[in-house]
Amino acid sequence: MNIIHYSGNELLALESRYRTAFINSLGGFKSVVMVGTINGAHQTNLAAFSSLFHIGASPPLCGLIFRPDTAARHTLENIMEMGVYTINHMTEASYKQGHQTAARYDRADSEFEMTGLETQFSADMIAPYVASSVVKFGMQFKQRIDLTINGTILIIGQIVETFIPESCISEDGFVDLEQAGTVTLSGLDCYHLTTRLSRLTYPKPGIPVAEVVVK
Amino acid sequence: MNIIHYSGNELLALESRYRTAFINSLGGFKSVVMVGTINGAHQTNLAAFSSLFHIGASPPLCGLIFRPDTAARHTLENIMEMGVYTINHMTEASYKQGHQTAARYDRADSEFEMTGLETQFSADMIAPYVASSVVKFGMQFKQRIDLTINGTILIIGQIVETFIPESCISEDGFVDLEQAGTVTLSGLDCYHLTTRLSRLTYPKPGIPVAEVVVK
Repeated sequence: MNIIHYSGNELLALESRYRTAFINSLGGFKSVVMVGTINGAHQTNLAAFSSLFHIGASPPLCGLIFRPDTAARHTLENIMEMGVYTINHMTEASYKQGHQTAARYDRADSEFEMTGLETQFSADMIAPYVASSVVKFGMQFKQRIDLTINGTILIIGQIVETFIPESCISEDGFVDLEQAGTVTLSGLDCYHLTTRLSRLTYPKPGIPVAEVVVK
Repeated sequence: MNIIHYSGNELLALESRYRTAFINSLGGFKSVVMVGTINGAHQTNLAAFSSLFHIGASPPLCGLIFRPDTAARHTLENIMEMGVYTINHMTEASYKQGHQTAARYDRADSEFEMTGLETQFSADMIAPYVASSVVKFGMQFKQRIDLTINGTILIIGQIVETFIPESCISEDGFVDLEQAGTVTLSGLDCYHLTTRLSRLTYPKPGIPVAEVVVK
């Protein structure tokens, strides 16, 4: 197997679009979700993100990275204005529409209408959900941290409601995303389904890991 | 399909381990990697992380979330002491060992020895790589941000060298992680292989997305 080695300087010297595709691939498979928002004039917005990450379970917190010059700028404006947003998983049936929500639409155009994804509203959340998303949850904005190192913005939110099919929740709280049909992303644009290898027991020194069997 | 709805207060009232498993599942499929470090006494350390996320491509930056009270505390100490660390993808052949690196070993025990994963060193990086990892890269520490909201720590690093099989790099810079055998994680402990659906073209308003075909 021939291994390509890039040094730090070689990475910085790569052609810009090549580097973007290459660097975005390195981190491994990623969460890919649609973030639903609304502004004070009741204009809805939907945008694809691949930077969602878990920060903690108690309280339940997630982070999202925003690049201010991208199509996601309206999402950030809406979150700062209204304080809430929704996270909606993509499936094989919706990932092409989900990908299209990342196009640079005008402020007045809702990505819901532009892509044909239908809105859904809950009693406790003004931001719109994606009706067809199997796994989805609502977020309350908590903190904005400007990452001065490259001008991106970290938004931290708290999960304030969840909608999950009963059939996908195991007895121990694990949610079977594979059964829910959630897709994963690699690089900027490659979507994948998954095949479970196994769940592994909590690791302890000196005890070999075993497979978890839970209903 | 029966949908389970939890409100924010119901989420906070869930039994602790159930909540941890549930909340950790919500974000979608995750990157799962082994982080290699070394300290000034040349003790190596290896620890599994599922919080790696892309921050930017120019310069190439990634973030990692640390919980100070976990088995990852030695990793954080080593990064703060030496300023460098490695990121090593897991495959079907190594994910059980990779999972086991998250056990709470003593400071003097290297997870490399404890799990049987072999070290590999590059000319430009003092931190150890995992020899068997197909996709791996070296990081220079750049910034520590303490997330006061829940006591976790965000470590931002710059990618300073990469090792990728030539056969996995497409003409446009995309790295085929599926071909490299990289696994993905859901929840705290569920590992998956992937099956590609498609790569999609850069989204633009009014133009339907199409599949990308690149060598």
